Amino acid sequence: MKNDKSEILLPHQIAQGQSVRLSEMSTDGRDYCSNRKQAEEEFRELRDELIEWQRRMYAEGSQKLLIVLQAMDAGGKDGTIRKVFRGVNPQGVRVTSFKAPTSVELAHDFLWRVHQVSPATGIIGVFNRSHYEDVLIVRVRQLVPESVWRPRFKRINEFEKLLHESGTAILKFYLHVSFDEQGKRLRERAKIPEKHWKYSAEDFDKRQNWDKYMTAYEEVIKRCTTEHAAWHVIPADRKWYRNLAISRAIIAKLREMNPQFPRLPEGFRLPNGF
Amino acid sequence: MKNDKSEILLPHQIAQGQSVRLSEMSTDGRDYCSNRKQAEEEFRELRDELIEWQRRMYAEGSQKLLIVLQAMDAGGKDGTIRKVFRGVNPQGVRVTSFKAPTSVELAHDFLWRVHQVSPATGIIGVFNRSHYEDVLIVRVRQLVPESVWRPRFKRINEFEKLLHESGTAILKFYLHVSFDEQGKRLRERAKIPEKHWKYSAEDFDKRQNWDKYMTAYEEVIKRCTTEHAAWHVIPADRKWYRNLAISRAIIAKLREMNPQFPRLPEGFRLPNGF
Repeated sequence: MKNDKSEILLPHQIAQGQSVRLSEMSTDGRDYCSNRKQAEEEFRELRDELIEWQRRMYAEGSQKLLIVLQAMDAGGKDGTIRKVFRGVNPQGVRVTSFKAPTSVELAHDFLWRVHQVSPATGIIGVFNRSHYEDVLIVRVRQLVPESVWRPRFKRINEFEKLLHESGTAILKFYLHVSFDEQGKRLRERAKIPEKHWKYSAEDFDKRQNWDKYMTAYEEVIKRCTTEHAAWHVIPADRKWYRNLAISRAIIAKLREMNPQFPRLPEGFRLPNGF
Repeated sequence: MKNDKSEILLPHQIAQGQSVRLSEMSTDGRDYCSNRKQAEEEFRELRDELIEWQRRMYAEGSQKLLIVLQAMDAGGKDGTIRKVFRGVNPQGVRVTSFKAPTSVELAHDFLWRVHQVSPATGIIGVFNRSHYEDVLIVRVRQLVPESVWRPRFKRINEFEKLLHESGTAILKFYLHVSFDEQGKRLRERAKIPEKHWKYSAEDFDKRQNWDKYMTAYEEVIKRCTTEHAAWHVIPADRKWYRNLAISRAIIAKLREMNPQFPRLPEGFRLPNGF
């Protein structure tokens, strides 16, 4: 891999214990990148590199990578998956979209359904929404009392540590869009026929609670950024920058994991007659 | 979609009740196509069309497509998935690789583990190996007596009918490679470092039973080609022809399914204030 050794800067990665004020954090990434053409070129190169790392990881069959995507509605989770993973062998990528829990899921603890689909060896698991909904929407809508959701921060950190200790690298991305950009995208869903299927009147209700969601996200990002599982707050108003920033973080992690094609032992011989 | 109406010929699709003699069927596809450049060009066009159909199917969210891949070792199942689905959004494709059953799986009927991962609405499910192993390797190795495996042909047809009736289109491909081509590929796995991870001494043992496997496949293809779930015997020695033949069958099916982006109702209006 040609770029193995080069350093990738990750300005959006949160440090352990760091407090964040989302309203003060960039949603457009202008301070980080302004050359769209150059960004798109780098993104395509990183995507080719991702395809190659994924092949190695699958062949190696010992490490796992979990990518968690969270965002407000229309924040770009689906688009991120489509663009960032374009061309990657679907045999080695497992995307799980978490919807409102079913009655069977609600009859278990909140990590039960998540644990079942955590990635196996050689696999990149992508969570489109995740266990974090249980301290986000659940908190804002008061679906359970604080005495129930507050201890979940600890349970989440413990769960992610368990995954980490069994060989799972973890990357968590909050796609940070502005209130205005969200409004624009929600309107587009009603206006562009190919986007109609994404339209939901409910999204406009949730939008009323924007500030409450931001507060909930801020606490998630602060409390659940651990040494082995940091949050990245990705400026996501401009999709081309969002794609680049996420790809950089994924590639930086894969270079660190550095999966290799396994080799046959020295002196190996084919069976007789071959 | 520009090609919606054009007819695709499927010369490798088996007719209901048809007996097949695999040793007399093409493994190289020379009678069907000799122009590699043209084939690769058509394949790329079909792949672009597949990406678009998959987006529509996911958006539509009502139909399902199940693709079953079976082959002898080194028959090209992994390569088919990597090439044919390259670029398709992994969010709408779920690949399941079936290995030797676990003790929990063996404690249930043979369709139990398969049913659990049958595709959901909007999803293309790809089976790398499948429930057919239970009438193939299980038969050749005599893992269970004939009185156990023989009734499975009927159970499989019933199971596939159930899927069909709940909106799942089914395509089944047997990747037909010659004995010589398999030998060449197994040797390559030992010689090419990037392929070492696929090498298994056991594959050479299975190769001793080639004729028994062919007999088992012939019976599978005859007995389990139904109106709604036909087998296709794909000449697979030349990978570029294999990819094209499989893509043609998938696209023909998707054009028939013809998924559409859902529309908002006439006269729809955004909520007040938008």
